[in-house]
Amino acid sequence: MRQTYIKEIAKHVGEEVTIKGWLYNIRSSGKLMFPQIRDGSGIIQGVVFKKAVSEETWKNFELLTQESSIVVKGKPREDSRAPGGYELDITELEIVQIAQDYPITPKEHGIEFLMDHRHLWLRSRRQQAILRIRAEIISAVRTFLDDSGFVLCDSPIFTPAACEGTTTLFECDYFGDEKAYLTQSGQLYNEATAMAFGRVYCFGPTFRAEKSKTRRHLTEFWMVEPEMAYADLEDVMNLAEEFLSYIVARVLDKRQEDLKVLERDISKLEAIKTPFPRLQYDDAVKMLKEGGLEFEYGNDFGSPDETYISQKYDRPVMVHRYPAKVKAFYMESDQENPDLSLSVDVLAPEGYGEIIGGGQRMFSLEKLRERIAEHNLDEASVDWYLDLRKYGGVPHAGFGMGIERCVTWICGIEHVRETIPFPRMLYRLKP
Amino acid sequence: MRQTYIKEIAKHVGEEVTIKGWLYNIRSSGKLMFPQIRDGSGIIQGVVFKKAVSEETWKNFELLTQESSIVVKGKPREDSRAPGGYELDITELEIVQIAQDYPITPKEHGIEFLMDHRHLWLRSRRQQAILRIRAEIISAVRTFLDDSGFVLCDSPIFTPAACEGTTTLFECDYFGDEKAYLTQSGQLYNEATAMAFGRVYCFGPTFRAEKSKTRRHLTEFWMVEPEMAYADLEDVMNLAEEFLSYIVARVLDKRQEDLKVLERDISKLEAIKTPFPRLQYDDAVKMLKEGGLEFEYGNDFGSPDETYISQKYDRPVMVHRYPAKVKAFYMESDQENPDLSLSVDVLAPEGYGEIIGGGQRMFSLEKLRERIAEHNLDEASVDWYLDLRKYGGVPHAGFGMGIERCVTWICGIEHVRETIPFPRMLYRLKP
Repeated sequence: MRQTYIKEIAKHVGEEVTIKGWLYNIRSSGKLMFPQIRDGSGIIQGVVFKKAVSEETWKNFELLTQESSIVVKGKPREDSRAPGGYELDITELEIVQIAQDYPITPKEHGIEFLMDHRHLWLRSRRQQAILRIRAEIISAVRTFLDDSGFVLCDSPIFTPAACEGTTTLFECDYFGDEKAYLTQSGQLYNEATAMAFGRVYCFGPTFRAEKSKTRRHLTEFWMVEPEMAYADLEDVMNLAEEFLSYIVARVLDKRQEDLKVLERDISKLEAIKTPFPRLQYDDAVKMLKEGGLEFEYGNDFGSPDETYISQKYDRPVMVHRYPAKVKAFYMESDQENPDLSLSVDVLAPEGYGEIIGGGQRMFSLEKLRERIAEHNLDEASVDWYLDLRKYGGVPHAGFGMGIERCVTWICGIEHVRETIPFPRMLYRLKP
Repeated sequence: MRQTYIKEIAKHVGEEVTIKGWLYNIRSSGKLMFPQIRDGSGIIQGVVFKKAVSEETWKNFELLTQESSIVVKGKPREDSRAPGGYELDITELEIVQIAQDYPITPKEHGIEFLMDHRHLWLRSRRQQAILRIRAEIISAVRTFLDDSGFVLCDSPIFTPAACEGTTTLFECDYFGDEKAYLTQSGQLYNEATAMAFGRVYCFGPTFRAEKSKTRRHLTEFWMVEPEMAYADLEDVMNLAEEFLSYIVARVLDKRQEDLKVLERDISKLEAIKTPFPRLQYDDAVKMLKEGGLEFEYGNDFGSPDETYISQKYDRPVMVHRYPAKVKAFYMESDQENPDLSLSVDVLAPEGYGEIIGGGQRMFSLEKLRERIAEHNLDEASVDWYLDLRKYGGVPHAGFGMGIERCVTWICGIEHVRETIPFPRMLYRLKP
């Protein structure tokens, strides 16, 4: 008999269905048993009435342990008291495998234990909610960009010479005689593809060999980076606010159940509507000083600074025109004050800090060369990149968004390590 | 004035529009000039009539070189003789940058030269067509799987111990004291997420340090891998044929223009409809022998064998039940003949060979352990994977498809190196 997925159970009320899944939990009260069954698409509460099933079936239910794999037959019925709105009157049970001593029990476990058992921890309700929201966000990102005329151009993972210094780069042996470095950003490649396709994006894993052990760092994380030819800082800010509000609206539309599991305050997400506030770096610094924070003008913001600024708003705030020296070498400078760059960081509300960084790219070949020299970079390693300023250079701009930070914010959770199926961190390479 | 994209020009016939792009080509005949302008979304032929523009505009047009960046104003007009069906009567020109000696000219260039200039080569009509089709295929893959209840679960790039031997693995230094290997497949991780979500897929870059220099090998390539709990070989074959026919139909629907640029024989793609022929390995071997090919029963097929078999059919052929010893350790064996595995390779028609490989996974913990020992693998490195057979194991199955081989086939081109923006090969790490 064909499998019915729990998420589609509403369509099958009163019919006999087959559910193939795992025992999530079970409680019994004399002549009734209430197994909770999960099949990956959802969880449903079953009802087993001793008189309604064979003796063997009843006994088999008594054998079941947490995460045993089972196939059950029964009829779904609406029940407003049931968690998902439906219950299943079970008539038959087939045991596929009895799980022995499943390590993750309903009791509390330490985080290291859970991370060591990540391959099993993923089966829990909370982790499922987070990763479903992650998948929804990624789908929303791609739909938004595809529908807005951006062409997906995957940038390479292996990059040759280390353009911005090797300290935070992972180094790979490339057939013995060469070194390859794992990409930190598709930015430079995006600029090449933007000159070919006008509007492009790349979306893939990126890598930072940072020895940070904070709740916001992974060594391997996914980043989406749109880039536009014939565009400026203003266009980037317009794109960023449309993009983020679309993503949030999509999650609110499709993943209400999962947000409920996470006890997310929905009102905070419902507030995420364009336009987003825009704030010059200079004004953000004033705000910090007025708030009594110690901050030296010209520096980049630290986490506490970002938290302070973002908590002033109910939606993401776009801080623009950072000092050129705290931004990447390829940022265009502000004509009105060349010490400032045409850059923008988008800080998520509720203290989640930076989720997007972007800006307008340097147009002039000469100025770009000066910057490369100032940053002590090796010009030979980016000769191809300089070509983009020789052969029909145009004003262009774009941004990058780290997916895991975005998921952390939208889910309203503490730590980035729960936002990817198998997180990689300073001391975490397994499973 | 707002930019109009060339692909939307049909909506603006008779209006004055602004096109922002690059000069693709230009020819003149006395009092007329015909600049071809590309903006990434398409190419349009412009018409400049000496009497209709200022003297300065005419002179500026004479200055233009290939790939100079320009902004033009004019009115689009239908013209059935024009390549895209429209021409632009140009009235104004703004030069953004004159390109000096653009290296890629309409004459023929050698492949090494073109690969060295890949960042510019991407601007050519043929490369654009291929990469647009790539983007369409990727979008189709995701839409199909998302709409079929598969949850995207990204598998990690960094993997710990080398489960299947290190010869074709790229090795990375992981903070000095550990080694990380770049993933060759998300398979093992997919099995964990399938036990959590029922139906999952991963889709990301994978790596093979193969010293092959063939037209079918990249060291870095993208792979999509769906995996299903409670599924068998039959389900995998059903999924694969639905999946491929959906992808081909989408490309036919959306990328006709690009297929035309590539001079693709559309009739070959229109034939790709379910059901696909299914052929046992044993029968495929018979076919080879009857065709006079030398082949020893029990071996894996080589490229010439795959080409021979696939040329017998007008649609992909699914060859199943390969000898267990030529397939991965985790393949389930056929109950009727344990020397055979419940595996399937899908061979694309027209001699393109294998694009999909998959099958049913080993259910039994004991047999899996035996296999691990037989393959001289380190059991400790896959202890977490063995957990999946202890805690509610279920029959499960899935496949992997290499994106670049699929693009090569659908585009009808020779070499995989043109199917990814920045290919990485044995001797190619730049740009």
